Amino acid sequence: MILGIDIGGANTKITEIEGDNYKIHHIYFPMWKKKDELVNLLKNYNNNVDYVALVMTAELADCYKTKKEGVEDIINKVESSFDCPIYVFDVNGNFLTSEEAKKNYLDVSASNWMATAKLVSEFINESCILVDMGSTTTDIIPIKNKNVLAEKTDLDRMMNNQLVYVGTLRTPVSFLANKIDFRGKLTNLSSEYFAITADISLILNKITEEDYTCDTPDGAGKDFESCLTRLARVLCADREMVSDSELIDFANKLYNNLLNLIRENVDAISKRFNLNDIVITGLGEEILKDALEGYNIISIKETYGKDVSLATPSFAVAKLLQKQLNK
Amino acid sequence: MILGIDIGGANTKITEIEGDNYKIHHIYFPMWKKKDELVNLLKNYNNNVDYVALVMTAELADCYKTKKEGVEDIINKVESSFDCPIYVFDVNGNFLTSEEAKKNYLDVSASNWMATAKLVSEFINESCILVDMGSTTTDIIPIKNKNVLAEKTDLDRMMNNQLVYVGTLRTPVSFLANKIDFRGKLTNLSSEYFAITADISLILNKITEEDYTCDTPDGAGKDFESCLTRLARVLCADREMVSDSELIDFANKLYNNLLNLIRENVDAISKRFNLNDIVITGLGEEILKDALEGYNIISIKETYGKDVSLATPSFAVAKLLQKQLNK
Repeated sequence: MILGIDIGGANTKITEIEGDNYKIHHIYFPMWKKKDELVNLLKNYNNNVDYVALVMTAELADCYKTKKEGVEDIINKVESSFDCPIYVFDVNGNFLTSEEAKKNYLDVSASNWMATAKLVSEFINESCILVDMGSTTTDIIPIKNKNVLAEKTDLDRMMNNQLVYVGTLRTPVSFLANKIDFRGKLTNLSSEYFAITADISLILNKITEEDYTCDTPDGAGKDFESCLTRLARVLCADREMVSDSELIDFANKLYNNLLNLIRENVDAISKRFNLNDIVITGLGEEILKDALEGYNIISIKETYGKDVSLATPSFAVAKLLQKQLNK
Repeated sequence: MILGIDIGGANTKITEIEGDNYKIHHIYFPMWKKKDELVNLLKNYNNNVDYVALVMTAELADCYKTKKEGVEDIINKVESSFDCPIYVFDVNGNFLTSEEAKKNYLDVSASNWMATAKLVSEFINESCILVDMGSTTTDIIPIKNKNVLAEKTDLDRMMNNQLVYVGTLRTPVSFLANKIDFRGKLTNLSSEYFAITADISLILNKITEEDYTCDTPDGAGKDFESCLTRLARVLCADREMVSDSELIDFANKLYNNLLNLIRENVDAISKRFNLNDIVITGLGEEILKDALEGYNIISIKETYGKDVSLATPSFAVAKLLQKQLNK
């Protein structure tokens, strides 16, 4: 069996692949709080594993001072968890041994998007823009004639419209606006960590309560009512002061800012690379459909199932390693 | 002795006044984490106290579901801490008994700015804009012929340019910008809680390390180097990838956004009320001087000393209660 592992800052995703069968595990595991428990977590999946294929972004979490320190620590922890060969996927689309990976730590940092891109270019569409909206970020990746034309570091990707730091769940709504039209007036908003995009996504029916897999900002529930309560706080108000329909209107305005942030970055890539087909994946597929109206959209959820769309990089590295080993 | 107490979400400030002498205590006390320890904290100051004058904003913290719940809990805790009469300052500029205050909970919620405004109108300038930049927020208060012409609730104040939710220390830099010019390109920024205005303020010499009284986002130091490390993370970079001078340039751009947010709200008030004198107070006085160039500025720090400028509402309610009792 091949295990594809994607260790993110907030979530760890694991795909078990054997032949044509696969099974996906999705674990909310905030590395900045729990990194010392990672080996214990991974050992639960050490059954009949022949190869491990690894991608990561957790080295960016602020529990690590530099990428070097993060990459080394994560690979060491994966090595402690399994007895089989470990291959680390790099931003050039190659698998490295764990020793090579530690040496070339910049190449294996944040390579999850390349794994998904390779999956798309090999199996779905040779020339397209891959847009992957996860819980925390949105990756925008140009692919032309099977070539993944993306920048390699997160800094370069943020400088070139290829990484937008907004996600379906974890983005504070204070990132979307510091003022907004409310009751006809341009109104200042709170900068406190009172509500997140998960609250907006749930209020507007873009995700279910089950999809709300991160902690709530106030530790309260994930139901519609609790989401409205959190959103009211962004106006320094409570639900005695602001009506539900005003809050839903407020949610829609914040949502539009979210859509615009994604749209303007995708438009820039579309124009720069002359690409109009878009492959979407990730928890935010419904949001991406709203943001990218007018493009020719292919959905990974509809192609491979929701499980894969929620854990694409781990599925991708497992599948790509399987292909490489079968050659 | 009269005790002026200002219980904020992040800081509690206490002024002891006896005759013309006063002493100020400034305690970092995050209510959303530690509210159950408030009585223990306050009991430390229960020596020869004849009267307590109270203002609060902590009822807005997300440890309380509504203002009603917050106001009641805070007053109950203050009552448990002292045996003397407690007067709660309200947004109309009056002192209420604790029983009246609990009944009129909306009137005593977030009245700290009114305390400062009354101090200014009674002792400094009858017609001016009071701008108070604390650790977390900036209050902008029009005063005309001794009348404090401010909205009463935080929601109304945010709708009318009188409350800007940016402060000297605790504002996440992600609130100031979601994209910024970097190396000549419009660059996306991270929405994670990686750096705060305290980091910018320290890097740009607007505050000292001693003034950095809140927690750092990563738990690391408050020195110049640690602030730069945190700021680099907002670009998904580390200090191997971005130079110090680039980071200082980045800090300056974020700082300009901060200045503009304050400036545009003050300009709106100046125009609406035809006021051009400005009284500044709070930890952010140096920032306000940068933001409000061109106005006639009177500094409370230079008038009453730094201690008072850092705890003005607690000083104000103590002084105002003293005046009222002496009548």
